[in-house]
Amino acid sequence: MKLLYPTSLKLDVASFDGFSVALQPYDVKAAIPEEHADAEILVTWTNSADNLKDAARRLKNLRWIQSLAAGPNDVLGAGFDTSKITVTTGSGLHDHTVAEHTLGLLLTAARRFYEMRDYQLQGKWPAHLGGPQPDRPAGAFTTLRDARVLVWGFGNIAKALTPHLVGLGAEVRGVARTAGVRDGVQIYADAQLPELLAETDALVMILPGSDSTRHALNAERLKLLPKHAWVVNVGRGTAIDEDALADALEKREIGGAALDVFEVEPLSEASRLWKAPNVVISPHAAGGRPQGSEGLIADNLRRFMSSQQLRNVI
Amino acid sequence: MKLLYPTSLKLDVASFDGFSVALQPYDVKAAIPEEHADAEILVTWTNSADNLKDAARRLKNLRWIQSLAAGPNDVLGAGFDTSKITVTTGSGLHDHTVAEHTLGLLLTAARRFYEMRDYQLQGKWPAHLGGPQPDRPAGAFTTLRDARVLVWGFGNIAKALTPHLVGLGAEVRGVARTAGVRDGVQIYADAQLPELLAETDALVMILPGSDSTRHALNAERLKLLPKHAWVVNVGRGTAIDEDALADALEKREIGGAALDVFEVEPLSEASRLWKAPNVVISPHAAGGRPQGSEGLIADNLRRFMSSQQLRNVI
Repeated sequence: MKLLYPTSLKLDVASFDGFSVALQPYDVKAAIPEEHADAEILVTWTNSADNLKDAARRLKNLRWIQSLAAGPNDVLGAGFDTSKITVTTGSGLHDHTVAEHTLGLLLTAARRFYEMRDYQLQGKWPAHLGGPQPDRPAGAFTTLRDARVLVWGFGNIAKALTPHLVGLGAEVRGVARTAGVRDGVQIYADAQLPELLAETDALVMILPGSDSTRHALNAERLKLLPKHAWVVNVGRGTAIDEDALADALEKREIGGAALDVFEVEPLSEASRLWKAPNVVISPHAAGGRPQGSEGLIADNLRRFMSSQQLRNVI
Repeated sequence: MKLLYPTSLKLDVASFDGFSVALQPYDVKAAIPEEHADAEILVTWTNSADNLKDAARRLKNLRWIQSLAAGPNDVLGAGFDTSKITVTTGSGLHDHTVAEHTLGLLLTAARRFYEMRDYQLQGKWPAHLGGPQPDRPAGAFTTLRDARVLVWGFGNIAKALTPHLVGLGAEVRGVARTAGVRDGVQIYADAQLPELLAETDALVMILPGSDSTRHALNAERLKLLPKHAWVVNVGRGTAIDEDALADALEKREIGGAALDVFEVEPLSEASRLWKAPNVVISPHAAGGRPQGSEGLIADNLRRFMSSQQLRNVI
């Protein structure tokens, strides 16, 4: 049995010892060498499209691919024979780091750090943003304290994010396919969105990319948000109709948008979002740092060797 | 008995009802009207220097001043006869809001939101800040997870801040006059600073302004910080030797500085800090929003009426 692991991130390979498996590093940007084309297990992280396409063609013994990405679209689009090969994702490895970035984007919005930066670059003191301020004024998003945060797409990232928001005093509600109470948060179904959006100071979108989530936030729903509400997107860019969002921002129909993902990445130079008022553009930087990969690989390797059900099967 | 309360912030005055005290609003930017010069109690918030100087001269019956500022230097410098007048501070009213801002500054530094903004203003995608990244690389401050945060000045704001840092995975240590364990955090005395600074990824300064804290962070101590360490100051600007800090930044001897307070405010146009690399300038915006003022005023009013010891006496 042979497992190929990527050299594109630092892995403590000793964590995979103890099984009757040969461990072999490989370069994710080059073709896999012929002497390793007999591997049964492939761990992927930031592989080139060519590497994956070639592997799909040449690795005839492959039975399991462990991606370290939360959504391994690259693997799924490479032509692997998924009737023979199990694909498992890196779901859970990115929760903490995406949650931290999301919290940073929310605070950037509330505390207007982006506007302070604009003043700094001109050597100007933004007096209106400092000194005595009203505490939690109505019709403004200036703090997470008592802020009504709606998390649309309530999975593991949302669960990692919520304690930080609650700790800062926010009132957190969620939207997901199944309503109920999850981790102490009231979760509503999509049908409730009209009422929920109208009562939101900050909308955090963590929707996965799929046909059903495409343009989930459209012109109609944007109009339901209060004038001061911020939109934060750390899920998939396709979940927002960017034209409708740019319209809403330019007409000041919402408070602002802090975006880490976009319909097309890198964001086109022609996009109106670059210069629309109160937009914070982050270059798909929330995740990209898998944490605890070794534990997931080792656990799934043990399961694989003992023919148990793997974790994170697609 | 008469209490004068400021109209410079929204107060729920009904919270002070129930005592044999006449409650009278007043304008903090004008002289107090003659018919109210007999007040025994003065609550202050963002009073003009003239208002306070005039009040010190004319309010002969004054026995207690309740400032809503954490450090009421304005009141102390106005010439009130403190042999007859008790001054109490707004200590505690600013903890939460300063802690939130500090957390925002730390995340701005770690996640480099300020650098993303610079790219955005040029319509450029900062590819190097997004996509796959090493997780917690040595010699860099890129996340609060496992970051070694040293809080210098460990009072109420630090206590409010610590749970958020710990929740995000940081290792928090404190420096204060008295060593020991406070709220689960190991606090060290100043004498330990050389060792502590050398093991710091982010130094958070929350020192009060006084002769003994002047230039606490000087050239010598800056040199003890690792090359990647950030300095965050939300205490008093005088606690940092700004020339030494600008030197360290320009020579890239530290990772950066996120500053909410300055030796002179607004920061002089001539300051090198505006353009030094990796500086985030926030216009004294961390606090300035007293929270829970009514509770403090009512409690102290009750104590005053019953001749008990007041809270937050200077």
